[in-house]
Amino acid sequence: MTTTTTQQDLFVSTGLHTWNQAITRATAFFDACTDEELEKTISPGKNRVVYLLGHLTAVHDRMLPLLGLGDRLYPHLDALFVTTPDNPAATLPSYRDLRNSWMTINQHLTDALKSWTPEEWLQKHTAVSDEDYAKEPHRNRFSVVINRAGHVQYHLGQLVLFKK
Amino acid sequence: MTTTTTQQDLFVSTGLHTWNQAITRATAFFDACTDEELEKTISPGKNRVVYLLGHLTAVHDRMLPLLGLGDRLYPHLDALFVTTPDNPAATLPSYRDLRNSWMTINQHLTDALKSWTPEEWLQKHTAVSDEDYAKEPHRNRFSVVINRAGHVQYHLGQLVLFKK
Repeated sequence: MTTTTTQQDLFVSTGLHTWNQAITRATAFFDACTDEELEKTISPGKNRVVYLLGHLTAVHDRMLPLLGLGDRLYPHLDALFVTTPDNPAATLPSYRDLRNSWMTINQHLTDALKSWTPEEWLQKHTAVSDEDYAKEPHRNRFSVVINRAGHVQYHLGQLVLFKK
Repeated sequence: MTTTTTQQDLFVSTGLHTWNQAITRATAFFDACTDEELEKTISPGKNRVVYLLGHLTAVHDRMLPLLGLGDRLYPHLDALFVTTPDNPAATLPSYRDLRNSWMTINQHLTDALKSWTPEEWLQKHTAVSDEDYAKEPHRNRFSVVINRAGHVQYHLGQLVLFKK
């Protein structure tokens, strides 16, 4: 570690590693679930596995505008998986479509993350004003990505209860 | 953001913020639990809340030698909360002692984290050899802290199932 640039790259690579690890673990979990298992609840009276698949997909889709990466791919998922609790009577997209959306949004995000310079990682996210960012410069893209990896971990802790 | 040093400080402050947020949320959860609630399981047949309190405390205690911060404070917790699954027949420390240990170890760690320069955050953790660190420089203290914050999130996702 001889240059400052290298040090910044190390912080960035830790952020990317944290994100990749969370996505890899969650994807392995969902891939190991049959469609029948997606319909099970993680615990009696709690969310179904498919709700958490849709929820994580929708939350990651919301990262596109938040990180300044363009328009959302799946805005229709919010009404089913973010703004309302799990409702077994609701008509969901096909499980195949949901699984594909999960893969697509994560690949899309990961490709963008891998292309960023340290400076780009530290740009403010779009939900914070220039004024607030000047006062709270930790409200940046790096922070968003670490936070969302933690959100995946949070729900993974719940998902494994169903499998164990 | 005018200097490179400032940029490094931003990565560091995100790491510290992530750690603090996880500790604050978990502490608020445990503080809101009565001793009777600590004995409840998070879900039928799964870990008791007190097991997760002891588990998180022990795992954080293990961070002391891993981060080069000296000897452990509570090595006796491992046999109860890390190397064996939850056993309601085991004799545990008093809940008061466990709650105090959780507060003490986190304060101890947080004080150290707050004192580190960016260079100190990027030092290798002690479980990686010099040779491996040369090849995999992301195996550093920053990575350990982010990882353990994610571990707290993972178990928080489970703990809230009991409260909801």
